[in-house]
Amino acid sequence: MDNYILKIDCEDAKGLIYKISDVLYKSDLNIVKNDEFVDIEHSRFFFRAIVNGGVEKNVLIEKLQESMPEDAKIELTQKRRKKIIIMATKESHCLGDLLLKEYSDDLNAQIVGVVSNYDYLKELVNKFDIPFDFVSHEGLSREKHEKKVMEVMESYEFDYIVLAKYMRILSSNFVKHYEGKMVNIHHSFLPAFIGANPYKQAYNRGVKTIGATAHFVTNDLDEGPIIAQDVINVTHEFSWRDMQKAGRNVEKVVLSNALDLVFEDRVFVSANKTVIF
Amino acid sequence: MDNYILKIDCEDAKGLIYKISDVLYKSDLNIVKNDEFVDIEHSRFFFRAIVNGGVEKNVLIEKLQESMPEDAKIELTQKRRKKIIIMATKESHCLGDLLLKEYSDDLNAQIVGVVSNYDYLKELVNKFDIPFDFVSHEGLSREKHEKKVMEVMESYEFDYIVLAKYMRILSSNFVKHYEGKMVNIHHSFLPAFIGANPYKQAYNRGVKTIGATAHFVTNDLDEGPIIAQDVINVTHEFSWRDMQKAGRNVEKVVLSNALDLVFEDRVFVSANKTVIF
Amino acid sequence: MDNYILKIDCEDAKGLIYKISDVLYKSDLNIVKNDEFVDIEHSRFFFRAIVNGGVEKNVLIEKLQESMPEDAKIELTQKRRKKIIIMATKESHCLGDLLLKEYSDDLNAQIVGVVSNYDYLKELVNKFDIPFDFVSHEGLSREKHEKKVMEVMESYEFDYIVLAKYMRILSSNFVKHYEGKMVNIHHSFLPAFIGANPYKQAYNRGVKTIGATAHFVTNDLDEGPIIAQDVINVTHEFSWRDMQKAGRNVEKVVLSNALDLVFEDRVFVSANKTVIF
Amino acid sequence: MDNYILKIDCEDAKGLIYKISDVLYKSDLNIVKNDEFVDIEHSRFFFRAIVNGGVEKNVLIEKLQESMPEDAKIELTQKRRKKIIIMATKESHCLGDLLLKEYSDDLNAQIVGVVSNYDYLKELVNKFDIPFDFVSHEGLSREKHEKKVMEVMESYEFDYIVLAKYMRILSSNFVKHYEGKMVNIHHSFLPAFIGANPYKQAYNRGVKTIGATAHFVTNDLDEGPIIAQDVINVTHEFSWRDMQKAGRNVEKVVLSNALDLVFEDRVFVSANKTVIF
Repeated sequence: MDNYILKIDCEDAKGLIYKISDVLYKSDLNIVKNDEFVDIEHSRFFFRAIVNGGVEKNVLIEKLQESMPEDAKIELTQKRRKKIIIMATKESHCLGDLLLKEYSDDLNAQIVGVVSNYDYLKELVNKFDIPFDFVSHEGLSREKHEKKVMEVMESYEFDYIVLAKYMRILSSNFVKHYEGKMVNIHHSFLPAFIGANPYKQAYNRGVKTIGATAHFVTNDLDEGPIIAQDVINVTHEFSWRDMQKAGRNVEKVVLSNALDLVFEDRVFVSANKTVIF
Repeated sequence: MDNYILKIDCEDAKGLIYKISDVLYKSDLNIVKNDEFVDIEHSRFFFRAIVNGGVEKNVLIEKLQESMPEDAKIELTQKRRKKIIIMATKESHCLGDLLLKEYSDDLNAQIVGVVSNYDYLKELVNKFDIPFDFVSHEGLSREKHEKKVMEVMESYEFDYIVLAKYMRILSSNFVKHYEGKMVNIHHSFLPAFIGANPYKQAYNRGVKTIGATAHFVTNDLDEGPIIAQDVINVTHEFSWRDMQKAGRNVEKVVLSNALDLVFEDRVFVSANKTVIF
Repeated sequence: MDNYILKIDCEDAKGLIYKISDVLYKSDLNIVKNDEFVDIEHSRFFFRAIVNGGVEKNVLIEKLQESMPEDAKIELTQKRRKKIIIMATKESHCLGDLLLKEYSDDLNAQIVGVVSNYDYLKELVNKFDIPFDFVSHEGLSREKHEKKVMEVMESYEFDYIVLAKYMRILSSNFVKHYEGKMVNIHHSFLPAFIGANPYKQAYNRGVKTIGATAHFVTNDLDEGPIIAQDVINVTHEFSWRDMQKAGRNVEKVVLSNALDLVFEDRVFVSANKTVIF
Repeated sequence: MDNYILKIDCEDAKGLIYKISDVLYKSDLNIVKNDEFVDIEHSRFFFRAIVNGGVEKNVLIEKLQESMPEDAKIELTQKRRKKIIIMATKESHCLGDLLLKEYSDDLNAQIVGVVSNYDYLKELVNKFDIPFDFVSHEGLSREKHEKKVMEVMESYEFDYIVLAKYMRILSSNFVKHYEGKMVNIHHSFLPAFIGANPYKQAYNRGVKTIGATAHFVTNDLDEGPIIAQDVINVTHEFSWRDMQKAGRNVEKVVLSNALDLVFEDRVFVSANKTVIF
C-alpha cells in the first residue's frame, strides 16, 4: 500500500485535527506521522501527515475540503522522487555535491538537466550522463537570455529549480513564473551580507562566524523564505579567499539539507517564512 | 480557561490520533498544539497535546482510557511551575545559574531547597533566600547518608530532583526511589568519558571537542536516557583545567535547556531513550 | 618570578621576530608562549608573548623600541586581574553571570561597581556585596546623564567597562572617552539585525539561526570590532519571546568568552577588526 | 622566491625561539608566519614557520640542528601539493568529495590512485580519470590481501594514504609500515562508539548528537591521534539509517578539513595527540 503526504494550510479554527483525522479514519487511512503548527500571529494552521492506505485522491480531497475552512490549501501527493533542474554558473562545489548524491542514491530527486550561462561545468556534468545546456548570456538582454533559459527548461519535466551558485540576477518575471519552485543557496547567514561577494563583506566586517542560507527565491533579492542556515567559525587569520574556501563546505551542506526537506514535502511557505516539519 | 498538557504513551495501533481528537473534540476541548511520534522499532505511540478548555480531569482520562489500547499511560497535567530540589557538592556554576534564572523569572520552576554534602555553597544559596540543607557524608555509610538526605528531601514537596554537579554516586535504592524524577548533568558528551574526571580523560585522549550531557538518572551510572547534549571545540592549547573551565559554560546551558524541556512536560522516557516534543 | 604579557603592534618588516626574541633572550627572559600574525592587507605585524623572568619594565620597553619600527605600540603588562565596571539596565542574565563567575573565582577580573539607569538590579548586585550606582536618566539630557555616569565611574579605578545589556545609546563623547575600554554584548549575530529589538527582527525575517556578538564599542552603533560570536538554531515554533529567552544563554556565554580574551590581553584592535591570540 | 615550511619538535628549553629566529635571520630568511606551543606536561616544544627566501636546505638544517636540543626533529619542506592514495570500500561520499575537490582545484593534493577491496567505486573513480585498483580480499588471508594492496600502492609515489571509509581492519604490520602517513575517518565522535556500526550504537544509546572523527591510524583501532571532529544534532525521529545519512555530510567535511591541515604540514603528532597550527 502506498504512502501519501497530506499537507493542509488554512485559517486556524477549532477542531481541525479532529476533522482531518475523522476524514482519514473513515477513509480507512492510517496516519503514520503527523505534524501540526499554528501561527498564532497570523492565525494560520499548518498540518502535514504521512498517511498509509488505498486512496482515491479526488474523493479524499473533496471530503477534506468540505470539513476544512474555505481557504484551505490541500495537497495530497504520492511519495515519489522529485525531478529537478539545476542552474549553475562556474563554481562546481554545490552542483558536484548534488551530482554525487544522485549518483550514489543519496538525493531524493532526479536531476533532469543542468543549465548554465557558461560552459565551464559541462565536462563535470557530462561525467554523470546528465544533459547540460549551455545558454550564454553574452550579447543578450536579461529578458532575451531568460527567455532562452526558459525554453530550454520547459523542454524538461521538473518539480523544482535549484540555483546551485547561479550568479546572475533573475528578472521578476522569471521569478514569478517559478514562484515556490526555486531554491537558492546564498553564501552568507542572511540577512547579513546581502548582495555581491558576501565573503569580502564578511572579511571587511571582521566577523568571527560565516555561514550560508538556503531559501526560496522571491522577487526581493536574498529576501526569500529561509529554509536552512548554518555557520562555521573563522579567525583573523582567514583572508576572504580562505573564508570562501571554508564556506564552500557549509554552502553545499546547507543546500543539500534544505533540498532534503523540500523534496520530502516538509516545507510550507507562509508570510515570507517557512514552516518545516 | 486553563491550559492542560495531555501525554499519552501506548502500544501503536490504527486510528489513535482520530480517537484522541474525537474524545477531545466532543469534550469541547481545543488542541492548541500536538505532537506525535511512533517508535516503529518498539511499536510504541507517543502523543502530547496542549489543550485548552474546561476539563473534568477524571472524566476525560476515563474517556481516553476507553478508546486507547489497554496499556496506555495517560497523563493530564495543568500547566504549572514545577517544584524542584537541587543537589550539589562544591561547584557553583550550574546551581548558580539555576538560582539566577529563578530569581529573574527565567526558570519554569520553583527551587524549594538545595541539599549538599558540603557546606561550601550555603552562602551562595542563602543570598537567594532558598533553604540550604547541609547533610555531611563524613563518617556515614552511603546508606545512612542517603537516608538522611531523603529525610531532608521528604520534608519538602517537589516534582524533580536536579543533580547540579552532585559528585557522589547514588545507591540503587535511592535511584529507584526517585526514578524518572532525577535529572543529572554529566560533564562529557556521553557515552564518551563515562565515570570520574571526564575532562582529564578528554585531555588524555586528545579530543578536539568536549561537551556535556543532561540525562535522567538510572541505576547504570551515566547510562540513563539522554535529554540534551552540546559540545564546544578545544585545541591542543587546552589543559584539562582549561577544558573544565570552558566546559562549565556548556554544562550549565545544557542542564538549563534540558530542564526547560522536562518542566514543560515535553519529555517521554522509553526504552532508555527520550522522546522530546 | 613573574609572568608578563608583551604586546607589539607595528608596521610589518623583515626580522621582527628575531629582533624581539633577541632583546628578550639577552634580557634573560624566557618566552613561555608567543603568537604572531601579519595582516598582509594592511602590512601590519601583531605579536604577543607571555614572558617569564625578572623585568625592568622601562629598560625593556626602551630596548624593544630601539629595534622595532618607529610606529610600534609596545605594551608590557604584568599578569593581573583586571578591574571592571559593569553598566546594565534591567536584564539580569549577563550581569548575573558575571557576578556569579567572580563570586566563584571563575572571572579573571574584579567587578568594582555596577552602574545602571534603573534600580531594578540593585538587589541582585547587593547580594554579592558589590557597589551599585543608580544614575537615573529621567528628566536628564543624554549629556547630563552621561556626565553623572562618568562622575560615578571616575570615582572607581578600572580597566574596562562592560556593557552587560545596557540599553541606552551612548554619545560619541562618551564613547571616545573610553575608546578601546568598552565591551558590549549585542543580541544578534552582527551585522545582521543592527539596532533595536534584534529578536523581533529575526522573528520577522524567519531566520533559522539566532546569535549574539561581543564587540568593542565605537561611535558607529553596533559596528565596533567583533571579539566573539555564537549562534543557536531556532525553528518556526519560536516566537520572538522564545528567541529572546533562548538567546539569553548565548548572550551571556559569548560575553563571558569575549571578556576572558580581553582580560588576558589576548585581543588587538586594528582597522575595526580584532586580532585574537 | 620560494616558501618553505619549517617544523621543529624537541625537548623544551630556554631561548629556542630566539635561537631559531637567529639562524633564520642570519640566513636571510623571512618568517612569514610562525606558531609555537609548549606541551608543559611532557616538556616538549613545537614550532612551525612559513619562511620565505632562498634556502640551501642541508646547510640550514645543519645550522638549526647545532643550536637546537639534541633530540630535535627538524623538517624543512618546500610548499607543494602532496600526493595521496585513497583506500575505500563501497561508500562513495568521502571518496567522491575528494575527487570533486581535486577536480575543481580545491584539494591541496593530487590523488594518484584509489585502491579498494570491491569494484563498486571503479566507475566513479574512472569518471575522474584516476587509476582504480581493485584488490579483492575474497579467499585471501588478511596478510596476503594486505601484501597485494601494498604491492599496488608501492607502484605509486605518494605522501599520504587516506582511508575514505575503508571498512577492513588493518594488520599491525601494515599500520606500522605507514605510521604517520595514514588518515582515517571514523563515523562517530571518538572515543564514543569505537568499533563496528557506530550509528547503530548511537541510535541504541539515544544520543542527541552524532559526529565524525578524522585521525591518524595507529595500531589501536580507533585510538589514533585525533586531527578533527565535528558533530550534528539528532532527535528521537532519526532511525539509525537517518543518522547514517545525516552523518555522511559530517564525515566528508571532517575528513576534508583534517586533510587540509595535514597537507599544509600544520599537524604534529606527539604522545598520541596532535598539535595543530
